[in-house]
Amino acid sequence: MCGKIQDQANATEQDSAAVASEIGGSGTKPNPSSLAPINLDHGDPTAYETYWSKVGERSTITFTGDQSLSYFANAKNLCWFLEPKLEEEIRRLHHVVGNAKVDDHFIIVGNGSSQLIQAALYAVSPSDQPQPTSVVSAAPYYSAYQEVADLLRSGLYKWGGDAYSFNKDEPYIEMVTSPNNPCGMTREPVVNRPQGKIIHDLAYYWPHYTPITSQVDYDIMLFTVSKCTGHAGSRIGWALVRDKDVARKMVDLMVISTIGVSKESQLRAAKILGVISDSCLLDKSPGLENFFEYAQHLMAARWEKLREIAKVNELFSLTEYPSEYCLFTKEFTEARPAFAWMSCKSDMEDLEKILRGHKILARGGKRFGSDPKYVRISMLSRDQEFNLFLERLSSIHGITSGN
Amino acid sequence: MCGKIQDQANATEQDSAAVASEIGGSGTKPNPSSLAPINLDHGDPTAYETYWSKVGERSTITFTGDQSLSYFANAKNLCWFLEPKLEEEIRRLHHVVGNAKVDDHFIIVGNGSSQLIQAALYAVSPSDQPQPTSVVSAAPYYSAYQEVADLLRSGLYKWGGDAYSFNKDEPYIEMVTSPNNPCGMTREPVVNRPQGKIIHDLAYYWPHYTPITSQVDYDIMLFTVSKCTGHAGSRIGWALVRDKDVARKMVDLMVISTIGVSKESQLRAAKILGVISDSCLLDKSPGLENFFEYAQHLMAARWEKLREIAKVNELFSLTEYPSEYCLFTKEFTEARPAFAWMSCKSDMEDLEKILRGHKILARGGKRFGSDPKYVRISMLSRDQEFNLFLERLSSIHGITSGN
Repeated sequence: MCGKIQDQANATEQDSAAVASEIGGSGTKPNPSSLAPINLDHGDPTAYETYWSKVGERSTITFTGDQSLSYFANAKNLCWFLEPKLEEEIRRLHHVVGNAKVDDHFIIVGNGSSQLIQAALYAVSPSDQPQPTSVVSAAPYYSAYQEVADLLRSGLYKWGGDAYSFNKDEPYIEMVTSPNNPCGMTREPVVNRPQGKIIHDLAYYWPHYTPITSQVDYDIMLFTVSKCTGHAGSRIGWALVRDKDVARKMVDLMVISTIGVSKESQLRAAKILGVISDSCLLDKSPGLENFFEYAQHLMAARWEKLREIAKVNELFSLTEYPSEYCLFTKEFTEARPAFAWMSCKSDMEDLEKILRGHKILARGGKRFGSDPKYVRISMLSRDQEFNLFLERLSSIHGITSGN
Repeated sequence: MCGKIQDQANATEQDSAAVASEIGGSGTKPNPSSLAPINLDHGDPTAYETYWSKVGERSTITFTGDQSLSYFANAKNLCWFLEPKLEEEIRRLHHVVGNAKVDDHFIIVGNGSSQLIQAALYAVSPSDQPQPTSVVSAAPYYSAYQEVADLLRSGLYKWGGDAYSFNKDEPYIEMVTSPNNPCGMTREPVVNRPQGKIIHDLAYYWPHYTPITSQVDYDIMLFTVSKCTGHAGSRIGWALVRDKDVARKMVDLMVISTIGVSKESQLRAAKILGVISDSCLLDKSPGLENFFEYAQHLMAARWEKLREIAKVNELFSLTEYPSEYCLFTKEFTEARPAFAWMSCKSDMEDLEKILRGHKILARGGKRFGSDPKYVRISMLSRDQEFNLFLERLSSIHGITSGN
């Protein structure tokens, strides 16, 4: 699985110059065989760079050389490496958006939500089982769950596959991703047995991607700055955890594996989340465009263009989302997910391979426990890459098996 | 083990106000039973804050809101999340100091060297063994090795204890820490069998702690910003790795567990390491005090005071270090380690407990695979805490079992 990641990185490397030259436009049409692939395999959220450029000074942060030398951020806190300012801004943002209850939860910061997934698995796995506990998720599921669960061949937990197929009478852990990665649909647990522990991955439960239909209040909820604000490079995720012992075990994992989380990233994330909260409050934000409105319009426009192409060429299907009332925007809206979950209308195709033939790199359905006729495509690239992707997609007029 | 970490954090919390008031000095002598413990359990390197305050502007860094959104730092690099500037400054610093060969090695950045230990164990563990590979280290060994190796009950590796006792005829991994944590001595591998893989942990192989006696050139060498510059809060470590496949596997672990490393911390670490290199080069650093000279004097002064107290009260022993020629300072010097490895002269004592009775928190010998008559004491605290520690230590005039 990881070789795949490296392949994508290498593809980016080899082709970035070519993409740049194509985007730059020399006036001459490039030879199709020399086209640089567009990498939409990762959800790299560079789409939001433009917003942050416009915000300017207000989102800038400076560190002096003598700042944040210590491992400790707040020894009073169970999560003693969590910067108090970040905790404050996380709680504030959830209050402003109304997507999750935070008042009865501990906040645990992690190196991205990836580390928090591992920490949560560690914390809820029973330690007295003869065999590792199964980790399941309803297909199509986020491809990283299997990678994280199986990485070190842990004796505590192991990947158990599609939750719909899980029928063992024993403890299990279910990852519930809502809105779901890759398909953007709202999700509920599917196994529903008393021996289960549930981890809610809510990375995309923000108003730019989906209607906020309720203020959720689960035992373990995972969020990440990457998908909320676009700052993937900062590697900041957070967990809202109701139970103190679970929270403490998650902290233990974080301490042993990385002795906490970058103070610089935490303080910058606090600043960025603060700007987003301010941008939602008219009185705090003269001249500051509401981030979620901005991002919602951006996503809606991209989805509209993509649906138009799918409609015209009649080769591809896209997931349809119901219109629901969003408590944040006070409007009925449809989801505009961070990924498009697209399929060929023909059942016999490997869509990842077909798109690769057209120099579009996307992640194939098999990695999500689904069918190769599906692919997951990032909707979060920069404008120029997104437009180039649309151009290439619309140039596909027929699918042949050899393509 | 982790509960221990939390206990220490809590101790810090409950007592920080009391320590501050004691340090501040109200003029009245505090009641001994109400004294706040001084926490010297961690090697929290706040001793260097003063240097960085003096450096000022030169070590300051600013981030604008639109910077570093992407997961990628340099897709051309095998370690695609490594900031090119950090790679450049790491290579430069090793050239300036002459402590390790870097030209034939890949550089892998990690969330502190803790994550790199895990990555290195993952990368060198044979995947075809029926049982997990033993991870050993010569006692006294760094207490975190056991915690990392056993954290997830991995099927790839497990803690195997003291390398001196390892006598199995099977693959093994030896952690060689030089200078050693906790005792500061120079170390070589002790098992020396063909089935072994060796990971060199060189966190303390810098001129402020030990004479640089050679430019080392091992297959896997781990370093960390924490102990080099004092910026522990940044969580930046790096590995120098000769073999491409090992490097790639280490990157794989980093990608699956945290999708890379904070860009903010990497860029700030690049700045800080750059200042240190500049400070060693007269022509680049008008008005900038050589960091290693500054830190060496600081550590030498602390060690002198501690040895004086041990000599006077005759209750404690400290490790003695040979005088060796340092290729960096061009002088014969003794080591001045980041930790004191101190023992009671009597064999029957639990020194951690004794010191706790005098409100000094240190890490007991048992956690390092050694005797409870030993403790590891951080020499890297702020001046005020260090002086308070000396004061309390010198007030111990006799040891009784009940103490």
